[in-house]
Amino acid sequence: MLEKRDYLILLFDFYGGLLTEKQKLIFDLYYQYDLSLGEIAQEQNVSRQAIYDVVKRTESILEGYEKKLLLVDKFLKTKDRLQEALLILEQATDENISSLKLKRIIRETIEEI
Amino acid sequence: MLEKRDYLILLFDFYGGLLTEKQKLIFDLYYQYDLSLGEIAQEQNVSRQAIYDVVKRTESILEGYEKKLLLVDKFLKTKDRLQEALLILEQATDENISSLKLKRIIRETIEEI
Repeated sequence: MLEKRDYLILLFDFYGGLLTEKQKLIFDLYYQYDLSLGEIAQEQNVSRQAIYDVVKRTESILEGYEKKLLLVDKFLKTKDRLQEALLILEQATDENISSLKLKRIIRETIEEI
Repeated sequence: MLEKRDYLILLFDFYGGLLTEKQKLIFDLYYQYDLSLGEIAQEQNVSRQAIYDVVKRTESILEGYEKKLLLVDKFLKTKDRLQEALLILEQATDENISSLKLKRIIRETIEEI
């Protein structure tokens, strides 16, 4: 399971393009640059509460997009499958068996992404 | 290259969740069920022009999401890479070389999706 923070950053990577410039900036400062609400408030010359509201609203918008589209969910499943494929390749001892299993995983991944 | 129609259906698979129920229904009837504008107009009891407008507007919304998010573009690249990996697996003669190339492709795919 991803930490809430990492999960939100992932949602931002997927859906950030649909946010306003202000939402993007504040999300970025808070989650990617790890500034505190107080520091962002000072920099933006607004109240701490105003920044908190933008952060919460932006989280809720991002989660709303994921609820409707489930693209991050699909991405995480694809990534898991590919990591499984990579592990098989790295640990392969019996070439034939691993090759068959690999083909199945890659085929299924292509069908499901 | 995908046909325009297949491309729009792919955009719909990704971003359809952000459309209104009416947009989804008409897009579906026109693109997935292949009904004509006239047939949909008759079924919905509105003018052919009204249906045409919804179809064009919906296409433009879907293309707008892709322009902002590029998730279908990324998906098509991932799919190409995985198909390349599958081809290598299926044509493998020299196990070591193909295994190294495969690992590289899968690693790069994981990093880029």
